[in-house]
Amino acid sequence: MHVTQKVKKILSYYESDNPGTKANLCRMLMHGRLAGTGKMVILPVDQGFEHGPARSFAANEAGYDPHYHYQLAVDSGCSAYAAPLGSLEAGAASFAGAVPTILKVNSSNSLATSKDQAITSTVQDALRLGCSAIGFTIYPGSEYMLEMYEEIREMAEEAKAYGLAVVIWSYARGPEISKDGETAVDIISYAAHMAALLGAHIIKVKLPSDHLENAEAKKVYLEEGIKIDTMEDRVRHVVQSCFNGRRMVVFSGGSKKGSDSVYDDARAIMAGGGNGSIIGRNSFQRPKDEGVKLLHNIMDIYKGK
Amino acid sequence: MHVTQKVKKILSYYESDNPGTKANLCRMLMHGRLAGTGKMVILPVDQGFEHGPARSFAANEAGYDPHYHYQLAVDSGCSAYAAPLGSLEAGAASFAGAVPTILKVNSSNSLATSKDQAITSTVQDALRLGCSAIGFTIYPGSEYMLEMYEEIREMAEEAKAYGLAVVIWSYARGPEISKDGETAVDIISYAAHMAALLGAHIIKVKLPSDHLENAEAKKVYLEEGIKIDTMEDRVRHVVQSCFNGRRMVVFSGGSKKGSDSVYDDARAIMAGGGNGSIIGRNSFQRPKDEGVKLLHNIMDIYKGK
Amino acid sequence: MHVTQKVKKILSYYESDNPGTKANLCRMLMHGRLAGTGKMVILPVDQGFEHGPARSFAANEAGYDPHYHYQLAVDSGCSAYAAPLGSLEAGAASFAGAVPTILKVNSSNSLATSKDQAITSTVQDALRLGCSAIGFTIYPGSEYMLEMYEEIREMAEEAKAYGLAVVIWSYARGPEISKDGETAVDIISYAAHMAALLGAHIIKVKLPSDHLENAEAKKVYLEEGIKIDTMEDRVRHVVQSCFNGRRMVVFSGGSKKGSDSVYDDARAIMAGGGNGSIIGRNSFQRPKDEGVKLLHNIMDIYKGK
Amino acid sequence: MHVTQKVKKILSYYESDNPGTKANLCRMLMHGRLAGTGKMVILPVDQGFEHGPARSFAANEAGYDPHYHYQLAVDSGCSAYAAPLGSLEAGAASFAGAVPTILKVNSSNSLATSKDQAITSTVQDALRLGCSAIGFTIYPGSEYMLEMYEEIREMAEEAKAYGLAVVIWSYARGPEISKDGETAVDIISYAAHMAALLGAHIIKVKLPSDHLENAEAKKVYLEEGIKIDTMEDRVRHVVQSCFNGRRMVVFSGGSKKGSDSVYDDARAIMAGGGNGSIIGRNSFQRPKDEGVKLLHNIMDIYKGK
Amino acid sequence: MHVTQKVKKILSYYESDNPGTKANLCRMLMHGRLAGTGKMVILPVDQGFEHGPARSFAANEAGYDPHYHYQLAVDSGCSAYAAPLGSLEAGAASFAGAVPTILKVNSSNSLATSKDQAITSTVQDALRLGCSAIGFTIYPGSEYMLEMYEEIREMAEEAKAYGLAVVIWSYARGPEISKDGETAVDIISYAAHMAALLGAHIIKVKLPSDHLENAEAKKVYLEEGIKIDTMEDRVRHVVQSCFNGRRMVVFSGGSKKGSDSVYDDARAIMAGGGNGSIIGRNSFQRPKDEGVKLLHNIMDIYKGK
Repeated sequence: MHVTQKVKKILSYYESDNPGTKANLCRMLMHGRLAGTGKMVILPVDQGFEHGPARSFAANEAGYDPHYHYQLAVDSGCSAYAAPLGSLEAGAASFAGAVPTILKVNSSNSLATSKDQAITSTVQDALRLGCSAIGFTIYPGSEYMLEMYEEIREMAEEAKAYGLAVVIWSYARGPEISKDGETAVDIISYAAHMAALLGAHIIKVKLPSDHLENAEAKKVYLEEGIKIDTMEDRVRHVVQSCFNGRRMVVFSGGSKKGSDSVYDDARAIMAGGGNGSIIGRNSFQRPKDEGVKLLHNIMDIYKGK
Repeated sequence: MHVTQKVKKILSYYESDNPGTKANLCRMLMHGRLAGTGKMVILPVDQGFEHGPARSFAANEAGYDPHYHYQLAVDSGCSAYAAPLGSLEAGAASFAGAVPTILKVNSSNSLATSKDQAITSTVQDALRLGCSAIGFTIYPGSEYMLEMYEEIREMAEEAKAYGLAVVIWSYARGPEISKDGETAVDIISYAAHMAALLGAHIIKVKLPSDHLENAEAKKVYLEEGIKIDTMEDRVRHVVQSCFNGRRMVVFSGGSKKGSDSVYDDARAIMAGGGNGSIIGRNSFQRPKDEGVKLLHNIMDIYKGK
Repeated sequence: MHVTQKVKKILSYYESDNPGTKANLCRMLMHGRLAGTGKMVILPVDQGFEHGPARSFAANEAGYDPHYHYQLAVDSGCSAYAAPLGSLEAGAASFAGAVPTILKVNSSNSLATSKDQAITSTVQDALRLGCSAIGFTIYPGSEYMLEMYEEIREMAEEAKAYGLAVVIWSYARGPEISKDGETAVDIISYAAHMAALLGAHIIKVKLPSDHLENAEAKKVYLEEGIKIDTMEDRVRHVVQSCFNGRRMVVFSGGSKKGSDSVYDDARAIMAGGGNGSIIGRNSFQRPKDEGVKLLHNIMDIYKGK
Repeated sequence: MHVTQKVKKILSYYESDNPGTKANLCRMLMHGRLAGTGKMVILPVDQGFEHGPARSFAANEAGYDPHYHYQLAVDSGCSAYAAPLGSLEAGAASFAGAVPTILKVNSSNSLATSKDQAITSTVQDALRLGCSAIGFTIYPGSEYMLEMYEEIREMAEEAKAYGLAVVIWSYARGPEISKDGETAVDIISYAAHMAALLGAHIIKVKLPSDHLENAEAKKVYLEEGIKIDTMEDRVRHVVQSCFNGRRMVVFSGGSKKGSDSVYDDARAIMAGGGNGSIIGRNSFQRPKDEGVKLLHNIMDIYKGK
Repeated sequence: MHVTQKVKKILSYYESDNPGTKANLCRMLMHGRLAGTGKMVILPVDQGFEHGPARSFAANEAGYDPHYHYQLAVDSGCSAYAAPLGSLEAGAASFAGAVPTILKVNSSNSLATSKDQAITSTVQDALRLGCSAIGFTIYPGSEYMLEMYEEIREMAEEAKAYGLAVVIWSYARGPEISKDGETAVDIISYAAHMAALLGAHIIKVKLPSDHLENAEAKKVYLEEGIKIDTMEDRVRHVVQSCFNGRRMVVFSGGSKKGSDSVYDDARAIMAGGGNGSIIGRNSFQRPKDEGVKLLHNIMDIYKGK
């Protein structure tokens, strides 16, 4: 399949990147059932790290085996599969070339005593495992925010030099951010914007609520009449905050929920101009055929069916 | 256009720098509508990082797109355009050679829990993006001041070795400095002087008030009869504190305000011997033609019209 | 002796490793009385560091001499011998090639004032001493957890590049984990899973109790009906949490106790599909012939006798 | 002028140094009006950093220009001129070879919130600026003391390897040292001794009072009858503490005061066997001819006139 | 003099070391009046750093001059002379080859505000000064213990690679260790054992008292009937804790005291199988002939006279 005009247009936005990085972005955009559409559905499996093995995999025991997730990504036609070091090491040779992979290079877990993450793998690991990108989480608002920014600055510089793409998970949290504020539209769009300023090629955020957290921001939202009533509006505002669409933004699905709700999310992302979904628990915690079906239905939404 | 005597005189002050750094200083001094005058107007766009996208760009939505600011700097004939990594990456190829650029290598944001900044890009980034200088913020008075000084020492040494220029944003703040003290003339001149001692080629400070913050300094100002009554006086004192004019100092414009106030500032800077202005929100938060006009008017003041 | 099918199968799970690392894993799996069975019994002697010399060696004074432990590992047919730098330096030449060795590269001690360990030797030390692997302790739940993860990430990357294997001791402890929680089955399986995600080839944990520490995890264990009644059940769950058996997991013996209890442990490990035991105090704190006999009996259990 | 026997004797004390470092020590000892005498008068101008520009230069406005101090050092025949990075960068080419220079590589300021200094320039900077030595401040007694010792250890090692000399400013201060204790003779001599142990070639301390700060030290001073009654006695004791004269020690002048008091200090230093003075504010805060005259008079004392 | 069988036996214990390190150990064991006996008396002079110059040298003023100590070590026939950087730099050329030297690479002082030391010189310094070994202090029990272990791990690895020997001063202290506990036999033997595990070639500890500090250790000492009644017993136990004699252990003399007490210590060390003494203040705080005589008498005890 030739690279489509839609994908060429997107690649043109990454004007300072070397051909290696462009090729890896292209690989993800030209892979799977959404190849060529400019949309992506990514399978992320770092929940074993974040919440432990039982909470992640007991619902569908096949998921204890890292090969299961590779196969799920392949069978469902995902654009890419993202996971931590050990998971990729356990399947990278068996599935070499079968699906683009994103090495999640930092991780936290539910035993952590601070709002920080550990760097658990490197750009060199990503290269030896044949990955297309590294994935890195930042916590805007955390006491560790500035250090995390310096870590991704260093890793992103190295990744780009080696022709890899950089995906930033941007999740606001910290002592001065309320629980509602973590998904407030002003915070989510700010978190996405900072990821873009830090040099991310692809940005991952949660879907925003219509809550406005910051008083000074709230004033501007009201004065300027920024539209945030519907999810579609809010997605559009986040896309605008990602350099007016010059950087791709995908939205995460959150904890397991009903299929209809997942589809509603996808429709809003599609309508608002977002670049796709990153769907973990909602796919691998279902029996395989159901998981594949759900992913296919999401992809159909992005294909405009 | 040949390099003017005024510019040659200024370059001669940078007597320890290599030809590469002199050439980059020259590039900024010989670019745009103020070329050859020894004065500069710089467009800085790091407010998306500092205050978030909506507070920065909703007033003039075109500003969500990084290309807008490049074009604004070109169309208005600014001496240089300064921005963080992501913004420059998004336009550096399209606008290569069109306007000198300054990579802002550290950044903070309104979600930060401490008076510090993260290093968010590097000298190597500045080189690969074709920049003429790096920009770095220090916070004299902060608990992180000494670390920030060590960071810029390291980055400045590397930048100078590669022929780049170094611009220091020197903004006093910290537990023992009052809100008024942040713009007190003794503090601003001290902050500017330390930036010069740290090896800055160009120093950026706020316009000082006639407040005197430090008791021991106040005694000296009164005893020695240092003139600080008018803005022109205070600008002259800051220029003196920058090695008696051997280092260029430009003044920032602050939040959006009326045009007349902006012009008054420029006239005082011109009269006091300052090297120019660095104008962000007052230019890009207006519709484009108004922003260009305002910048042109400022430049006319510096041209003595 | 040719490499057995069982060992070849295990080696095939380490699909991203270079031949050097596979060879070192093979060396341990093809050494001693359990050669070829896919099971391992490892002799660890770091108790002198952890508890001091008298508490470790007074019960069997021969143990003050590092050569004693080398000889014990050789005479009993252990799969490998693990110890800190000084101990290996004192015997590595005399026993070169006699038994695979694991250099314990970090250590704590009972005089420590924090739940952390010091890195006390390096990958380069392991190479010059002819070791097959490095051993590293992590404390999931400790305030130092994230730093420890970053340390092993760095050392594991280096070890793997040089063809060494990586063994992680994963011992949960910290301000939010109760004493019972340190051996709770949800915590042990989580600790084992994270070691696998961090890239361990071999994981060492304590035998788990049927306690459930974490409330959210407990809910899942009950809802999904995860079997944790018998030690065999719990071992099986831990094995599952180690990538469903794609990573080897061995269980530690704890403080000195009766032989029957030690054998019961081994039978449960065998039945649950664990890869073996790591037995320190229970072997070297007995007179040599008794220690050898106990180790032989354990090995017989793993040989299915 | 040939190198005198006095200077050769002093150089012989630096028996482990390479010829490059000996040559730089010689350069300072053979320069200016005290050339060949074994005595030194050094002009230090780091007060702009320490106290701000107005407090430093308003009394004699010519001092805002870094060239002024170079010229003052040349005209008065000082042995060397010491200043921070920016000041030397602004004049190093104009005054290349005119006077030996010492790059002050760390600095604090009156806005600092801790008793520490920032490293503000490097050995490489000293080399590219043609300096003969680096200058470094330590604060014995500060919570940052151990880190400062590690910093100068690293910089001194590098400086010596490149043939530069090392000057240590040793100023005791910290939570357990009283204000009087900062100049107590037991503390000053201890501070000087530690600078010698850290490898300094030239040590700078304040002139000591007859106060004894430390109880255990006081006992020894009384028991052993160490003479500390006169300034000459105390200078002699400090010289003894600098390896019995094998390391040069110079004394600082403090804040501006009457000329007679400055001369009394110099006579005591001369009588006690000290190696000279380091005179900043007392010289550059006077009109130039007065400053030169005062420096000449001090030098005459050291010449035994 | 040929290398004796006793020395060859000792060298054989260092089986993992390269010939360079063995040669340096041999140099110390074959030097001075105890050459070939397998015993050592070392002169350490770091008290100027630890307690200040007056408290260290006023009792015998000749000691202010670093050459004095070199000469004392030579004249008394010590096995080696240990001192910090500045002291060795001041005499290393004059006394090149006259006596083996140990560079004390970390140091604390009585103005310190924490139980830590600064690294004040390097392995490279030891090499350029012709030293046979580096000396490093650890504080088991201190809040800085783990960091100190990591520092010596790094420096020991480098020292060994360059063929130097490693001497560890192991002095327990910290928030949970009582004053009596610092010399308790369980703590001293634990401190010595950890130094051995960290890879020391020679271990320096204080002579232990019969106090037992740690409750769990005390139980074992009583149950196992470990003999600690006499100083000879306790020395023997410490030797056993140093890999049953595979690592050399020398004992420090403490503050100045009567000669008879010093000789009693030496006799106990000799009887218990220790490798010798490290005697500072008791030798250099006496007039030179008395100091030499005392050292000779100690050596005679070790020679069995």
